[in-house]
Amino acid sequence: MPRKDLLDIASLDREEIEVLLDQAVPFKELFTRSVKKVPALKGKSVLMLFYEPSTRTHSSFEVAAKRLSADVTNFDVAQSSITKGESVRETVETLQSMRTDYIIVRHKSSGLPGTIARLTKASVVNAGDGAHAHPTQALLDAFTIKEKFPDPTGKKVLIVGDILHSRVARSTSTILKKLGLQVSYLGPGSLVPRLGPENIQRFTNYEEAMKWQPDVVYLLRVQMERQDVQFFPSIREYHKLYGVTDARLEEIRQRGLYIMHPGPVNRGVELCDAVLDYERSLINDQVENGIAVRMSVLYHLRPNA
Amino acid sequence: MPRKDLLDIASLDREEIEVLLDQAVPFKELFTRSVKKVPALKGKSVLMLFYEPSTRTHSSFEVAAKRLSADVTNFDVAQSSITKGESVRETVETLQSMRTDYIIVRHKSSGLPGTIARLTKASVVNAGDGAHAHPTQALLDAFTIKEKFPDPTGKKVLIVGDILHSRVARSTSTILKKLGLQVSYLGPGSLVPRLGPENIQRFTNYEEAMKWQPDVVYLLRVQMERQDVQFFPSIREYHKLYGVTDARLEEIRQRGLYIMHPGPVNRGVELCDAVLDYERSLINDQVENGIAVRMSVLYHLRPNA
Amino acid sequence: MPRKDLLDIASLDREEIEVLLDQAVPFKELFTRSVKKVPALKGKSVLMLFYEPSTRTHSSFEVAAKRLSADVTNFDVAQSSITKGESVRETVETLQSMRTDYIIVRHKSSGLPGTIARLTKASVVNAGDGAHAHPTQALLDAFTIKEKFPDPTGKKVLIVGDILHSRVARSTSTILKKLGLQVSYLGPGSLVPRLGPENIQRFTNYEEAMKWQPDVVYLLRVQMERQDVQFFPSIREYHKLYGVTDARLEEIRQRGLYIMHPGPVNRGVELCDAVLDYERSLINDQVENGIAVRMSVLYHLRPNA
Repeated sequence: MPRKDLLDIASLDREEIEVLLDQAVPFKELFTRSVKKVPALKGKSVLMLFYEPSTRTHSSFEVAAKRLSADVTNFDVAQSSITKGESVRETVETLQSMRTDYIIVRHKSSGLPGTIARLTKASVVNAGDGAHAHPTQALLDAFTIKEKFPDPTGKKVLIVGDILHSRVARSTSTILKKLGLQVSYLGPGSLVPRLGPENIQRFTNYEEAMKWQPDVVYLLRVQMERQDVQFFPSIREYHKLYGVTDARLEEIRQRGLYIMHPGPVNRGVELCDAVLDYERSLINDQVENGIAVRMSVLYHLRPNA
Repeated sequence: MPRKDLLDIASLDREEIEVLLDQAVPFKELFTRSVKKVPALKGKSVLMLFYEPSTRTHSSFEVAAKRLSADVTNFDVAQSSITKGESVRETVETLQSMRTDYIIVRHKSSGLPGTIARLTKASVVNAGDGAHAHPTQALLDAFTIKEKFPDPTGKKVLIVGDILHSRVARSTSTILKKLGLQVSYLGPGSLVPRLGPENIQRFTNYEEAMKWQPDVVYLLRVQMERQDVQFFPSIREYHKLYGVTDARLEEIRQRGLYIMHPGPVNRGVELCDAVLDYERSLINDQVENGIAVRMSVLYHLRPNA
Repeated sequence: MPRKDLLDIASLDREEIEVLLDQAVPFKELFTRSVKKVPALKGKSVLMLFYEPSTRTHSSFEVAAKRLSADVTNFDVAQSSITKGESVRETVETLQSMRTDYIIVRHKSSGLPGTIARLTKASVVNAGDGAHAHPTQALLDAFTIKEKFPDPTGKKVLIVGDILHSRVARSTSTILKKLGLQVSYLGPGSLVPRLGPENIQRFTNYEEAMKWQPDVVYLLRVQMERQDVQFFPSIREYHKLYGVTDARLEEIRQRGLYIMHPGPVNRGVELCDAVLDYERSLINDQVENGIAVRMSVLYHLRPNA
């Protein structure tokens, strides 16, 4: 049965994930061969409904939609009556009445894209909702790992940072486990959930975590603007405890590990400057794959008639 | 003779209004049949010149223009030198020199779109100017009513709210009267003009107005952000005096009346939550018809060579 | 050898400048014949990276790119992580990974577009960087002058204003000299560089400058928002000393001189109201030619494969 919305990774089975990832391959090939546009969504309309700013994710979806020949309209929420207290339902009914085919939503409230999806015939793609989910990030992460490990079963990914509040950690670890990888978490004790998915090992000490012998070190962004809770002494302390310092990068290089990060990076916090030149950093691959994967998602979804 | 601009309803005769409304029918049919794009304005450029923010009207025009295959460019006035004191004339000469074909203008000053129209060869569409006019709103309102009453002659529309400061009230009542409908006003005495068009009855009491037996109750948006004058005790008071309360909705339902509103609604002010589920609410029809009507307007106008 | 970037005028030789200007001619003809779109950049992506707001330059490039059938995406830097301290290198790597073909950059730092150009395969166009360069402004100025003087050799252009801080003065005088014109500067002594290109005469007195017998008087915009240094008594004083007053306009008219200005103008400062109706004002020509010239630039550049 065709899928209308993409709200999270949890509700996808492995087969559908594989379909989405496989379909992204020819999209990526196309635009690396300078064929940047396909007519798949010609005449369809995509509406960007971003309640939280996010230049990268916004641009990535916008470029993906345009490469499928869709028409993209920004529904500028900052100026909107929405922020003057209009309910989500009314906003969505407006979009529904405009006969939008696809709605890309980012919002700070977990579950809001799901609410919108139930209220509209348009296909809804969750572009990040609170600490809940960020499914296209997870898909692009999985795609990026599969490029390096075509059969990723049993490969080990260490996710580092504020796991507790991270929708990236949640969605990416879910997809990796569905694809048969091993995942473990590293971070300050207060930010690594003790309860949670089975089979995920938890570390609070970098050196301990490295003994687990990960293939990929996945660094989460420290949300410095959300630092309402003083969760550890300082940014400098964080870098020393959990960041990829120059010394750790040397060890990572010797072991041949890959480094990933959802961007944008805080240099000197999650990682040192030298990571930018590290040959096994996949950070730019993630950006590029993000467009291909988002094309695949838009291509895959079917709005209701 | 082809028309260059659409500045208000007053300068349209009934025949031209009918042409604009009739032309919107096939546009609406097209996109309900999932044919969302026609090449009518292919290669033409539409410039959005919004001095006042308005997410809905802006998006509606943008979607309409894109469905006609025009190229849409936002002239972001908030950042613009215009706000640094450049005169309208210079701005318009710039747009003129850019060979824009259509300019969609919203501004808080009555008459500004007309000034712009005189200065440029581009077709100018007034998307709302102060308390003066909002002609595309009027056209979509008329279109929506005609969908329910194919021969609307003699039908009665009660417009409720701050009539005095409302360009919607002005433009919509003008078009309805041109089409042979009856219009009356309901609102606080200070906000319902005593002088004004002939043949428009004025009410200050809801129950009195209902004795007039309207077919449509058209609620204006209370401009809560413009509440510089304290025109009545409170929002709660307004809802009680002029809003569609639960009790009044029940009566409206029993009488089979339609409800309209230009959006976005203030729930608990102009209307109670239950109106959202009222089967004869035409609020979402208005949004949908707005796109078809705006396509018709852009299609109808002819920029000077 | 095809050129990847356009960063300044200094690195263009006369032949390449002529190619760029000549190529703009058919583009201008096309759209004055209402053929507003050509498929030259169909399927290519143009990314607008504006760190400084500039409605006119932004719109001009956007319209130019769309007329070449490119897809335009705004990378909204104001909301971006870039402003949260992300380095330019990371931003550019992101854009590079998105496989952008063209990047249009405006930034307050001199040299930044060049830095970006070295980091990416995309073609980079400098849309103004600090006091360094504004090459497309120079090209449109040269194009506009050549429309009036098909053989401009030896023609005289007097540039008036804050020469020292003006990227327009720098780029435009460079291109004019490369094309064989004579250039001189007029402005307050502190704002006209004593050192600088050879063969540029400097005036601090309007009447003295007019004795030089210019063919074109090119007025720079007074950056009233950048007035951190109080460089002369007042705006009124500036108008009196260096502005085109009513009396001076009369003399300019009698001599048949052209007036140019990069826009937006400060009326009552650089020039009096009557200049708007002066038949030899080329200000609107400059805007129109800006689109044709920018089309030519985009068409001319070749991103790396």
